[in-house]
Amino acid sequence: MFDKLPHCLVIGAGGVGVITAYSLFIAGKCIVSIIARSDYDIVKTKGYNINSCDYGNLEGWKPHHCYKSVEAAAMSGEFFDYIIVTTKNIPDGPTPVSRIIEPVIESNLKLCRTSASYRNKVCNIVLIQNGIYIENEIIELLETMNTSSAKVSLISGVQLIASTKVGSANIIHKNTDHLTLGAFDPNDKTAVAYSKKFIEMYKNEGKNYVELDTDAKYTRWKKLLYNATINTTTALTSLDFSRCVQFGPETTEFGIVKPAMQEVIAIAKSEGVIIDEKLIDFFYDITLNLVYKPSMCVDVQKGQLMELEVILGNPIRVAAKNEVKVPHLNIIYNLLLIIQGKIKESRGLLVFDEKTARVVKK
Amino acid sequence: MFDKLPHCLVIGAGGVGVITAYSLFIAGKCIVSIIARSDYDIVKTKGYNINSCDYGNLEGWKPHHCYKSVEAAAMSGEFFDYIIVTTKNIPDGPTPVSRIIEPVIESNLKLCRTSASYRNKVCNIVLIQNGIYIENEIIELLETMNTSSAKVSLISGVQLIASTKVGSANIIHKNTDHLTLGAFDPNDKTAVAYSKKFIEMYKNEGKNYVELDTDAKYTRWKKLLYNATINTTTALTSLDFSRCVQFGPETTEFGIVKPAMQEVIAIAKSEGVIIDEKLIDFFYDITLNLVYKPSMCVDVQKGQLMELEVILGNPIRVAAKNEVKVPHLNIIYNLLLIIQGKIKESRGLLVFDEKTARVVKK
Repeated sequence: MFDKLPHCLVIGAGGVGVITAYSLFIAGKCIVSIIARSDYDIVKTKGYNINSCDYGNLEGWKPHHCYKSVEAAAMSGEFFDYIIVTTKNIPDGPTPVSRIIEPVIESNLKLCRTSASYRNKVCNIVLIQNGIYIENEIIELLETMNTSSAKVSLISGVQLIASTKVGSANIIHKNTDHLTLGAFDPNDKTAVAYSKKFIEMYKNEGKNYVELDTDAKYTRWKKLLYNATINTTTALTSLDFSRCVQFGPETTEFGIVKPAMQEVIAIAKSEGVIIDEKLIDFFYDITLNLVYKPSMCVDVQKGQLMELEVILGNPIRVAAKNEVKVPHLNIIYNLLLIIQGKIKESRGLLVFDEKTARVVKK
Repeated sequence: MFDKLPHCLVIGAGGVGVITAYSLFIAGKCIVSIIARSDYDIVKTKGYNINSCDYGNLEGWKPHHCYKSVEAAAMSGEFFDYIIVTTKNIPDGPTPVSRIIEPVIESNLKLCRTSASYRNKVCNIVLIQNGIYIENEIIELLETMNTSSAKVSLISGVQLIASTKVGSANIIHKNTDHLTLGAFDPNDKTAVAYSKKFIEMYKNEGKNYVELDTDAKYTRWKKLLYNATINTTTALTSLDFSRCVQFGPETTEFGIVKPAMQEVIAIAKSEGVIIDEKLIDFFYDITLNLVYKPSMCVDVQKGQLMELEVILGNPIRVAAKNEVKVPHLNIIYNLLLIIQGKIKESRGLLVFDEKTARVVKK
């Protein structure tokens, strides 16, 4: 498969990305590069400080290579066998994922076209991100590019990991990394083979968990059962889910989340994905007893854009296409669109003119 | 009707209450007392400073009497012909309206029972407040009291007035006062007669507007069309309604407020109140073009309890009783209950234990 050590490029060096990069690095089966952006200088000179439940206290860890930007990586002349994306996925934000990774896909493809030694190499794009149908944006991008003499494979990663960047090049990782990874399209044999290879490179026995995902679509819909309902409700109310349930109506069961979960299951079913209804109580009950703020709630509180479109917009558009009624998801989505607009305004990503009461620039 | 000037007691000396009291005072047809609470000392010594679009700049205005508390008014030995309540109406808060006004109703009733000169006097309770079926809480209170030798009448006031207390005994009043006032029960002839008398006392020709409400139930449901939908949405998103609409989905009409308004109309209809559907566009369009934060939005931003139960809880309970489906109102209500719980926690009105993830005290 590889005549030399494969090269992995991690884009998105936050809490998730740095632990992902370190997991590959310490297993020793590949070259690991990272896009460090604002942390570039400190990573180059001092490296990362990592406090990890899986790997202990690490001071001054440096990946094999470090780039200031995706553009810099693209200009390095390197071929990246795995482009691993651990950024947030915000298509309605200033830089959608396809725009972020385009330069390095382009440079990979160009090497394949222009140099015999790279001909027919596989460029694996690994999206370790939330949401459903996030691969479509990449597929659309690829359709605009010259992919002759190369093969591009799309790999889905769903990760459970409580890892946070708490300061410049400073990571705290609290829960054992659990990565489920496989081809977006299970019929894409190349993507399946390169997923298996990735798992081999990623596994650190006794430290992390990584397993092959033979049905990425199912895995993503299943995670959406939580993300489209519980995550979104906590974002709307800016509260952990335990409080949401406890502060809600006393006489009836909390009336939004479970019906919304039923709707997610109905949309998935319309796409041929069967999700066991028992998972509703499973997700509900474990979350109920854990005072924890999910990602979208944290985003709202920090004034950061939410992954709203891939978590809720995409399922709702699928529901509309397949004529599945989703009143609860619809209302939650509409309300969160407003909150997302508020965050955009506060970050200068849109301008609302109070005189005309209209959005004048976005 | 009265052998001497009627005595009005205004409870709730905020922006609305002080202008209401002044309107009665300046018309010169009654005695006006006010419960000034924390402003008591400054009102007693210096009086109110009022900047009013209707009455101009007033420095050091003092009502005829000023009490520190409702209990103090109750102990004054005075009979109050009109108990005018301009507080917020928050039955789920620490002091529901019935609890606030009980002492002064009790002292009125006692005078009627024990003194021949007060026998069969009418104690008018005027609720100038938002919401629907707010009179029921008072009716329930009266059922627990000895009302022999007295007549209690319940009067509904719906007021449009942009008046705010901006500091101690300092009021800014921006839009002409428009008061619609009449008996909660149009068949209660006493309440109708005393409503007419009140209007006569309240009117200041060329300054304010006051009109007799011959169908208070209709007037309240009509105002609810706005309050239960637009007011609540701005509270949920903590944004003016123009922004809510502008930040909402572009491809479809803003998908929450108009369906919610349809639901309000359906509940009203189940109670025999017909509201013209044209009012939906009327309220929607005027609000859309006005960058203005309604009361519940302001409450959330100030961390104050919202009038959630009288604006949304009561209509939803009526809907349940009459088997009217109100999915949109239901979701908005459930979400706002959570926000109300958050405000209660921040004000120490309930205690949430993070260890057990349960509300332990309320």
